[in-house]
Amino acid sequence: MINVILLGAGNVATHLFRAFRECKNVNLIQVYNHKAGKLKDFQREVATTTDLSKLKTADFYVLALKDDAINEVAEGLHIESGVVLHTSGGKDMKLLSRFQEHGVFYPLQTFSKNRNLNFREIPICLEASSPKVLGRVRKLAVNISDNIYEIDSESRRRMHVAAVFANNFTNHLYELSSEICEENGIEFDILKPLIRETASKIESLSPKEAQTGPAIRNDQHTIQTHLDLLNEDQQKIYKTLTSSIQKTYGKKL
Amino acid sequence: MINVILLGAGNVATHLFRAFRECKNVNLIQVYNHKAGKLKDFQREVATTTDLSKLKTADFYVLALKDDAINEVAEGLHIESGVVLHTSGGKDMKLLSRFQEHGVFYPLQTFSKNRNLNFREIPICLEASSPKVLGRVRKLAVNISDNIYEIDSESRRRMHVAAVFANNFTNHLYELSSEICEENGIEFDILKPLIRETASKIESLSPKEAQTGPAIRNDQHTIQTHLDLLNEDQQKIYKTLTSSIQKTYGKKL
Repeated sequence: MINVILLGAGNVATHLFRAFRECKNVNLIQVYNHKAGKLKDFQREVATTTDLSKLKTADFYVLALKDDAINEVAEGLHIESGVVLHTSGGKDMKLLSRFQEHGVFYPLQTFSKNRNLNFREIPICLEASSPKVLGRVRKLAVNISDNIYEIDSESRRRMHVAAVFANNFTNHLYELSSEICEENGIEFDILKPLIRETASKIESLSPKEAQTGPAIRNDQHTIQTHLDLLNEDQQKIYKTLTSSIQKTYGKKL
Repeated sequence: MINVILLGAGNVATHLFRAFRECKNVNLIQVYNHKAGKLKDFQREVATTTDLSKLKTADFYVLALKDDAINEVAEGLHIESGVVLHTSGGKDMKLLSRFQEHGVFYPLQTFSKNRNLNFREIPICLEASSPKVLGRVRKLAVNISDNIYEIDSESRRRMHVAAVFANNFTNHLYELSSEICEENGIEFDILKPLIRETASKIESLSPKEAQTGPAIRNDQHTIQTHLDLLNEDQQKIYKTLTSSIQKTYGKKL
């Protein structure tokens, strides 16, 4: 049985909690958070604490915290044994080097509390302070996911940038699209089948093969018509992305 | 029985062909294209022609053509009766005003020949030269889709801009993301569960509620780390979208 303590009560912590609770071989023994209020959802199912000095002894201490809080919590964490992990895409493993056995356990996904996710499909990127520790972290990870990758801090940081484009920026385009609909009395729902298909399409085609639209066709008439309908901020994004599409295909086709 | 002739042999025409062929109440009697080569895929199932003067008589002539070709084909089309429709999101219905009965039949989706789509889920935006014609176009549309909208040329043009953000620009972000992966020896496949969830998330949350990442957290440290990893073109897009996210939430939160 692998004993795990979870530090954090946000989106990532909540999803890890749900995933670990369903594992036969994992015993989630405690959840820590500095604010008591956020522990309410966990209390019925597991021991909780707001006091780092009251942590139990475990095999893994998983810091599922905001990037800025990792260092602070790590400083207050005094343990005699066990592996300390953080779950951040952007932060170096070295942040935890005060602990003899440490590593990174980064689930590459966008988490919101109210969404149910199948954790088995989520890629988990692992890194560890030694091959021996990596082996133990991997044994933990396979309990919840079928997609385990070993990735060092440098590559993880680069992957995190790629994820910002694929998730944060993509979602912002959805937001801009919904704004344009709203400004014009169009239901945003009408675009949802298109959004679904845009994401599905790249399961069978590369994004390069899937590209369509006025920019790649260099359809100046449509581009100008579109610009005339947009406000200054929207125009800036339209122009930047149109010129980037044209550069991509002008250079490489 | 509704008799339909399809003009065009590209992605939209191919998908409309497949959808109409499955309808009990629709008889797809002919496909026209100016190039014979592109008609090969249709010939086994339907009469084809490359000569506009050899079109049969039908209830509907559906011009599923590139924006730039609509006018040219319309000029060569001499019919005695029937409704002439185009399938473009960006073009005005007036383009077909030489025909007594005309309209627009715009399926809001991204089409590639090798993708199978469930047409019933695809929104079809209709417009027609008179209420009577609209009624007839609607009778045609309900045979292939459960999502029929009546939308005028002005709104359709605006919706088309929103679709460019949600589809063309989003796909380009996938492309940039895959480039960053490739440059750093990371498999793009690792990002696919994230891309799927990003699109699925907005079925239950608004894009505004779904937004996460360094831009909305105003995490300058991570933003700077990311910029340092990108080339000039990638930086430009990163900065433009980050500042747009911050403006959206700075203004409205």
